[in-house]
Amino acid sequence: MNTKRVIFFCLLCLLFLQFNFNGMSNEKQSAVLSWEVGYNSSPDNLPEEWHQATVPGAVQTDFANAKEWKPFYIAENWKDYLWMEDVYWTYRTQFEKPDLLEGELLFFVSKGIDYEFDILLNGKKIFYQEGMFSPVNLNLTNDLKESNELLVKIYPAPKLPGFDMNRSQAAQSVKPAVSYGWDWHPRLVPLGIWDETYLEIRNQAFIEDLYTDYKLNDDFTEAEISLITEGKNLSGKRFEWTLTGPDGEVVLKETGLINSNTLLSLVLKNPELWWPHDHGDQPLYISELKVLDTEKNILDSEQHTVGFRRIQLVMNEGLWQEEIPFPKTRNKPPTTVEINGRRIFSKGTNWVNPEIFPGNITRERYEELVDLALEANFNLLRVWGGGIVNKEAFYKECNVKGIMVWTEFPLACNNYLDSPEYLRVLEQESTAIVKRIRRHPSNVIWSGGNELFNNWSGMTDQSLALRMLNSQCFLLDPLTPFIPTSPVFGMGHGHYIFRDLDGKTEVYQWMRESKSTAYTEFGMPGPSPVEILKSIIPEDELFPPMPGTSWESHHAFNAWVGDTWLMKDFLTEYFGEPESLEELVQIGQWIQSEGYKCIYEEARRQKPWCSMALNWCYNEPWPTAANNSLINYPDKPKPAFYAVANSCRPVLASARIPKFRWKTGEAFSVGLFILNDKYEEHVAGKMTIFLKSGDEKKEIGSWEFKSVNPNENLEGPVVETVLPEFQPGKMTLLLEVEGRPEWNSQYDLLKL
Amino acid sequence: MNTKRVIFFCLLCLLFLQFNFNGMSNEKQSAVLSWEVGYNSSPDNLPEEWHQATVPGAVQTDFANAKEWKPFYIAENWKDYLWMEDVYWTYRTQFEKPDLLEGELLFFVSKGIDYEFDILLNGKKIFYQEGMFSPVNLNLTNDLKESNELLVKIYPAPKLPGFDMNRSQAAQSVKPAVSYGWDWHPRLVPLGIWDETYLEIRNQAFIEDLYTDYKLNDDFTEAEISLITEGKNLSGKRFEWTLTGPDGEVVLKETGLINSNTLLSLVLKNPELWWPHDHGDQPLYISELKVLDTEKNILDSEQHTVGFRRIQLVMNEGLWQEEIPFPKTRNKPPTTVEINGRRIFSKGTNWVNPEIFPGNITRERYEELVDLALEANFNLLRVWGGGIVNKEAFYKECNVKGIMVWTEFPLACNNYLDSPEYLRVLEQESTAIVKRIRRHPSNVIWSGGNELFNNWSGMTDQSLALRMLNSQCFLLDPLTPFIPTSPVFGMGHGHYIFRDLDGKTEVYQWMRESKSTAYTEFGMPGPSPVEILKSIIPEDELFPPMPGTSWESHHAFNAWVGDTWLMKDFLTEYFGEPESLEELVQIGQWIQSEGYKCIYEEARRQKPWCSMALNWCYNEPWPTAANNSLINYPDKPKPAFYAVANSCRPVLASARIPKFRWKTGEAFSVGLFILNDKYEEHVAGKMTIFLKSGDEKKEIGSWEFKSVNPNENLEGPVVETVLPEFQPGKMTLLLEVEGRPEWNSQYDLLKL
Repeated sequence: MNTKRVIFFCLLCLLFLQFNFNGMSNEKQSAVLSWEVGYNSSPDNLPEEWHQATVPGAVQTDFANAKEWKPFYIAENWKDYLWMEDVYWTYRTQFEKPDLLEGELLFFVSKGIDYEFDILLNGKKIFYQEGMFSPVNLNLTNDLKESNELLVKIYPAPKLPGFDMNRSQAAQSVKPAVSYGWDWHPRLVPLGIWDETYLEIRNQAFIEDLYTDYKLNDDFTEAEISLITEGKNLSGKRFEWTLTGPDGEVVLKETGLINSNTLLSLVLKNPELWWPHDHGDQPLYISELKVLDTEKNILDSEQHTVGFRRIQLVMNEGLWQEEIPFPKTRNKPPTTVEINGRRIFSKGTNWVNPEIFPGNITRERYEELVDLALEANFNLLRVWGGGIVNKEAFYKECNVKGIMVWTEFPLACNNYLDSPEYLRVLEQESTAIVKRIRRHPSNVIWSGGNELFNNWSGMTDQSLALRMLNSQCFLLDPLTPFIPTSPVFGMGHGHYIFRDLDGKTEVYQWMRESKSTAYTEFGMPGPSPVEILKSIIPEDELFPPMPGTSWESHHAFNAWVGDTWLMKDFLTEYFGEPESLEELVQIGQWIQSEGYKCIYEEARRQKPWCSMALNWCYNEPWPTAANNSLINYPDKPKPAFYAVANSCRPVLASARIPKFRWKTGEAFSVGLFILNDKYEEHVAGKMTIFLKSGDEKKEIGSWEFKSVNPNENLEGPVVETVLPEFQPGKMTLLLEVEGRPEWNSQYDLLKL
Repeated sequence: MNTKRVIFFCLLCLLFLQFNFNGMSNEKQSAVLSWEVGYNSSPDNLPEEWHQATVPGAVQTDFANAKEWKPFYIAENWKDYLWMEDVYWTYRTQFEKPDLLEGELLFFVSKGIDYEFDILLNGKKIFYQEGMFSPVNLNLTNDLKESNELLVKIYPAPKLPGFDMNRSQAAQSVKPAVSYGWDWHPRLVPLGIWDETYLEIRNQAFIEDLYTDYKLNDDFTEAEISLITEGKNLSGKRFEWTLTGPDGEVVLKETGLINSNTLLSLVLKNPELWWPHDHGDQPLYISELKVLDTEKNILDSEQHTVGFRRIQLVMNEGLWQEEIPFPKTRNKPPTTVEINGRRIFSKGTNWVNPEIFPGNITRERYEELVDLALEANFNLLRVWGGGIVNKEAFYKECNVKGIMVWTEFPLACNNYLDSPEYLRVLEQESTAIVKRIRRHPSNVIWSGGNELFNNWSGMTDQSLALRMLNSQCFLLDPLTPFIPTSPVFGMGHGHYIFRDLDGKTEVYQWMRESKSTAYTEFGMPGPSPVEILKSIIPEDELFPPMPGTSWESHHAFNAWVGDTWLMKDFLTEYFGEPESLEELVQIGQWIQSEGYKCIYEEARRQKPWCSMALNWCYNEPWPTAANNSLINYPDKPKPAFYAVANSCRPVLASARIPKFRWKTGEAFSVGLFILNDKYEEHVAGKMTIFLKSGDEKKEIGSWEFKSVNPNENLEGPVVETVLPEFQPGKMTLLLEVEGRPEWNSQYDLLKL
């Protein structure tokens, strides 16, 4: 978190900029710039046309806006953008030299430029970087003229030569692979200035990095605090440091001389602990460092929030007791999140980029999506390695709202070979990423990337890239768990369909058989709502959906294996040929909802052996026609979202269901459970089970359960009945808990 | 390798020492010291008695020698030593101040002091260290008097409080756990100065560490070389560097000024490659750095050998194709050694300390044991993490003889918790270990330790100790593979007995069923030869062997699970009650030999899925009564050694045998193979199979095999016959290959 006070004096009309000084030396003054952008196919020439640029943003959307193109997410418009990844884009801005006081410096600061670029000041190349996650801090002072022109020249998107036009082209860059095309993401490779960017006046002595490190003692009554700083000309300067508590009172302070990178060693008594929202509060402290000159003028100051928590991945209960025959291999690795000494079940989802162009993600978008995660009863977001490492606003939301984050480095589904060039950029980028994100209490897991140890990727424990990331995290943030990838041994990814491809097993059966220690990806496709479909698919293609149309571009057909993601053949087999778009959407969303409920609840039933349930995926970066997502672009929950929210309630009645389709006269049976993730005991009670079809509601059994122990599930009887002669169609199983309607559950099955 | 010229001027009679100078400034002069040692139970008092000390050595053997004790390995004498681990031992030496020239310094150098110690010069404490693997380099110059007394005060052996008297006491120190007692090692915890120790005169500018780093290009035609140095006052000095080839000619040289830790970047064309002995030669280069003053006088010089090879752990063939069902976990990690682009099958063994007291291991002992490894057709030694990290002489032997080494850090079968104190010592020790050993081409695998991810240890991928070791190896020696422990996922440890404890399966059956990617430990116990038994067990206890006697102290009874290690009940069941010690030894060694042959050859038959076969264990640190070892203490091969040597021949005829015991009339069958680990093609030929009993030899089949491809096994037919009416007792299966008697194999089975 950069909390430097930002003052905007942007003279948009002139594209020229003038600094105003407030006469105080303790403030860094900043000014945003106005930018234009254009392209040329040659690296040696400037653009022939310039357009207004939005910074942060992306060259693609700037160009499309300038040309007044229709949105890229309609029909197959995205294909018009393909050429943009292969040309040289240049940003241009002009500004007047500000009146610098003696010793003051003018810096160009950007928190992210995507992906490889030169920076030129007044025609002279002054900087080059590969990597979108390393901030740029450029001292312009010595090259300033009275009127200045600053250019940021973006290279074409990185592509590993010799590969097809897909994610494998990203295998030697630290560029999120998803934009090269995925089974739910069009081929659109963002380029441009994608995070906050401005000019800043600094004193000779300034802070570049501030990290408030701490270690909690065993009973959490003390936090041993130290400050790690980086900066220029700090040595020998005086500092003042304060830690302000959640209620705004200063709880700890220190002054002294700066003589090394590690500044102090103090103990905070009885720190208030940060918890995920479903287990406690989110008290946030503020650590602020001021650097003073001999007259006690403030030369610079930095601050960031601190949340005190101890986070570990501990062995799932039962895992050490697993019987391993000779010749014995190792036991499985731990996947249970323990926070502040409390083991918790992680319920959550896989977060993907909320926009195709990450430069266009706003704080508001983060806020909406994090709020929805609370509504879904999620406590953990896995930020999938195919996408970006998110901006500061994301982590701040999660800090404040009590959502835990699993952050993956941008490696996914490729074999990132250990070339010196790649390792150099990865080291630079991962250093920047870890130094920024380690400050956030919400960040609880580091992961090297997605599915790297599976055969479609081909990396192994010996890959230097992953050994480097482990080493980096160990050196910079040792107390946050690190896993090299997901899945590790014992974790499960998939399946992503309701019924196996061979048609033999439904999700109900394979989940029952599965013994994964953590379900860190599982999908269940569902179509988007009719109004979204109508907004992205031309009317003449709308119904019936067909391959080769905009439906396919929006991932309804031939997206992944089998009939994905619309699953039209499968739905037709189960429900008959749908007669309208509305009907198709309704049955597809029904299947998605029930499939997800089955997995989340079965994963929870397998607690404590199982410790996590994270579906694939939460959101989507553009409106798909069908997808595993719970939320349609940009922020519209599908019916499955609410189904999942129910399955993730802290306490609920839950049924283990053998299958989806039933016939009259069949032996119908369900296993009863109370799932409890709360650290609270619940007294005894009674659950009554009904089957409902149309207006008919038939009691089929009941369970007088004893008290439910804190953080333990309670398994009840299996209720059996002969299925009555219900009409064909939806048949609902109801679990009603006396006096606790908030625990009630229902499952919509199919009566044939 | 420290190649400083060592000159010994030790005046033993006086315990005083005088340096002689040769008047040349380019030589460091060293002098060994004469030492006495004694103990006191209080840390504050000096010993009341002093005895002559052998340095390097151990306080225990010094004391026993002084008292003229009988060897500790006889009967239960070792129990007399137990008190020694709990007192304070002090070494004492005196020396005269040498005539130092202007600017010269006197250093006390020790390559290893075990385990925690103070150093006092003339009564003043000048140094403290915990850790036996970090060398001591102490500048004494400023504290010298004319006559000097140097004390090394050794603390009691480290013990984690609150644990029983076993290996768990070693769980918070970097002290090899084996000495706290193991199922083949008595409780004897060494203490003392255990590696080379001397005084040395240095110039003001001297080299502390020299590492010749290199990277081979893809086709091995170029080695990109750089020098990494550490030292004092080197900056600005002139250097001369030479690389001398295996034939003694200088192949590369460079001169310049020292201005950073990394000195040069040169390319060696067509480097001769270092290979394990069964795949090529062991060309060794010498890298020598000289530091010069302005008059070109040599201030210091260092050299070490360099062997050029590229070593990787690559995916076993077939492993990426393994079918993994949904929810999919990861693929297994690679275990195939690839050296210089060639995948090889690793045949070898688990090396344990060759002495109870590592200070007593001599170069000659290393030489004998490495020579025997060659004789056993082994190419890889896993230096097990329960024991020490070996001295330089070990690696030098392996460099010269072409034996690959897997080096484990000293962690074994414990949960080494992440206390700051432990991590600090582990960081210090592992830094010293990696910096020393990375220079040796023979070192091909780093491992965090033994069985750490199994439930009897309790460490996980999240353990900071192991993340630190991975990080250290990545930072200091990235191109040598690292595994956190053995076994990793897919590797197998065990079984350690011929027949499973439930009596249902013999090694023949469970090995056939097993699918480990690497068998990195498997045991087969066998008794020691009669002459050894007679030398360690009192005559009145000798026969029949009984628990509670010296047999048990020497691990014949109650060593591990079941009837280990003598397996008397099992042997009696198979062969009847043995009537003499000789008979018992003979049948025990027979079972050991056949068991080991089965595992080594079945592991090789499972190539390329399987990539390694390393038995538990190679040698032993004292004479056991029964053990899985192939070599009795100190260097006496058991019959199983020769059996294993046969099974590890580069090419051999091999039979897959269903079981050990046979009856007349049974359907006898064996599967035929030619096992080939050579990168050579072998032309077609004929194998004939016989059964032999006493003088009867009966042909039971033959196989005309086609040519054998390089590094591929050839599977032949299953030969079946009805077992003839042989006499009860040994029945030998013979595989004879026409014209290639060196491929012939035989298996001694039991006819009931």
